[in-house]
Amino acid sequence: MPEAPSKSDYLIGVDLGGTKILAGLFTPGLKCLGRAKTSTKADRGPSAVIERIARCVQDAADECDISLKQVRAVGIGSPGAIDPENGRVLFAGNLGWKDVPLKRELEKHLEIPVFLQNDCNVCTLGVQEVELESKPRNMVGVFLGTGIGGGLILEGKLFTGFNRTAGEIGHMVLEVNGPKCTCGNRGCWEALASRSALFRQIQEAIRDGQKTVLTEMLGSDLKDLRSGDLRKAIRQGDKFIAHIVEEAAKYTGIAVANLINILSPEAVVIGGGVMDALESEMMPMVVANAREHAFPGSDKGVKIIASKLGDDAGITGAAVLARRESR
Amino acid sequence: MPEAPSKSDYLIGVDLGGTKILAGLFTPGLKCLGRAKTSTKADRGPSAVIERIARCVQDAADECDISLKQVRAVGIGSPGAIDPENGRVLFAGNLGWKDVPLKRELEKHLEIPVFLQNDCNVCTLGVQEVELESKPRNMVGVFLGTGIGGGLILEGKLFTGFNRTAGEIGHMVLEVNGPKCTCGNRGCWEALASRSALFRQIQEAIRDGQKTVLTEMLGSDLKDLRSGDLRKAIRQGDKFIAHIVEEAAKYTGIAVANLINILSPEAVVIGGGVMDALESEMMPMVVANAREHAFPGSDKGVKIIASKLGDDAGITGAAVLARRESR
Repeated sequence: MPEAPSKSDYLIGVDLGGTKILAGLFTPGLKCLGRAKTSTKADRGPSAVIERIARCVQDAADECDISLKQVRAVGIGSPGAIDPENGRVLFAGNLGWKDVPLKRELEKHLEIPVFLQNDCNVCTLGVQEVELESKPRNMVGVFLGTGIGGGLILEGKLFTGFNRTAGEIGHMVLEVNGPKCTCGNRGCWEALASRSALFRQIQEAIRDGQKTVLTEMLGSDLKDLRSGDLRKAIRQGDKFIAHIVEEAAKYTGIAVANLINILSPEAVVIGGGVMDALESEMMPMVVANAREHAFPGSDKGVKIIASKLGDDAGITGAAVLARRESR
Repeated sequence: MPEAPSKSDYLIGVDLGGTKILAGLFTPGLKCLGRAKTSTKADRGPSAVIERIARCVQDAADECDISLKQVRAVGIGSPGAIDPENGRVLFAGNLGWKDVPLKRELEKHLEIPVFLQNDCNVCTLGVQEVELESKPRNMVGVFLGTGIGGGLILEGKLFTGFNRTAGEIGHMVLEVNGPKCTCGNRGCWEALASRSALFRQIQEAIRDGQKTVLTEMLGSDLKDLRSGDLRKAIRQGDKFIAHIVEEAAKYTGIAVANLINILSPEAVVIGGGVMDALESEMMPMVVANAREHAFPGSDKGVKIIASKLGDDAGITGAAVLARRESR
């Protein structure tokens, strides 16, 4: 007797960030039916944040008139170092968390199976599953945001390695004597091309007397500066900001070439807030530099593309995780 | 009835290089019983070289009073881009080869199954199988010689990726405005720490008036300079050579950290002629820089060690390949 389609096959994907929590309700076919969003309030501590996650999950289901009983599993992408087997956030700097049993606590609240992974790994799963028709067996997801993170899918599976830290691509050194990084080293990709790196370079230059339309737009302290403001400045002809963004794109291209040389992936997909805001300004330069620096032959047929998932990457990937793990 | 131990279970591993061919006869338990060696004579063209390989294989067997009929399979590591499935050397610059059906031609000569892989991949297999007791599921082999190459074992298997070029680690850019590399880019690891890079730096400095005991040892043109001469110079107190080697070790450490950040391996094992000659001069600095540059937590419990296989890495790994593939 063929199994009847179950009414409890919905999935919920959660994107846990330092400032906000997003949750999305998905069909088994990964169509997003509704979303909910709340602030993280990390300063209130892990229990309070976990309660907020549970409420956000319920809100996403409620938004679609679905009861949690109809949800098969919840996937969640968290920043930091994760132990997926035991469902623990080992360390997450921007949440102030150390060894938090997120899976177990969230399951107590929701009474549904919860699956946990690192946020960049989760986003990479999402890109592979819903964004790339070829579903490449070997791909790298790159996320340019406040920091730079990545995820690896190798031979069809998420690859996390011996210490579960594979994909810490943002701390790849590209310039041994380059600018100082938050990790303590110099010249990491993250110190050259993340949002923080771009903003730091702009602020330092302004302090040294550099003129930019950004100060006209936002005041001399650049309060509330966002990646999108850089795009606006470039479109208004601000050559200084264009140069800063071009340099970041050049370094990103070289980093992508390094990843291609090391891993020979079929696709490198670049997402994150910086790329979402500056895709048309950055991608041509990223691709040109990646092709120029890849070892001859190693980039043949390799796709180097920007992700279109935007803010949905996290919840989509988390839903993919929930689907895979609850099978 | 238990299967009787077969008399035809010997293995032969071949290391095909630009200047010499090595072959070794191994027991099924990977003990080397004898070796043979001949010059490659690449200028005579592929057919002549393949004949020489066949003769070298026969010599290795003959050396041990074994007939080729008692040999189960031959493994061979070749430089360049390889198509292992079809047994073809797609491109090998230092042999002058383009699309050579090495497996098929060698099987015609020997009438034994032949298995082909890239030389650095083969050496990595050898290190994993016979050198590391823990047989790590995730490891990187690094080979510092005339150039710098690598091999990846991920989840227990040789990983070659989409274009079969994974492990081209020598062309990882570490210094965007660094010295020119043979690949056309600047600041590749290979341009900073390979034997060619070391020799180039030394020769340039001598031209600029730098004094070194190497010129006393070998004459001002440094004819026949070898990696071992650098060790001798350092042991005679040559601070200039010590500095050149230290810089190469520093860059190598940073490159190892990049590999650890990206791949989270359990072990990074470094071999090749430069490391064989300069292990005690380089390794402490390599390890210190790798640990300093690895992202916190990602190098926990990770072994960073020098290979002890020396010249035997290639033939040993090739025998491992023959054993795995002929099972």
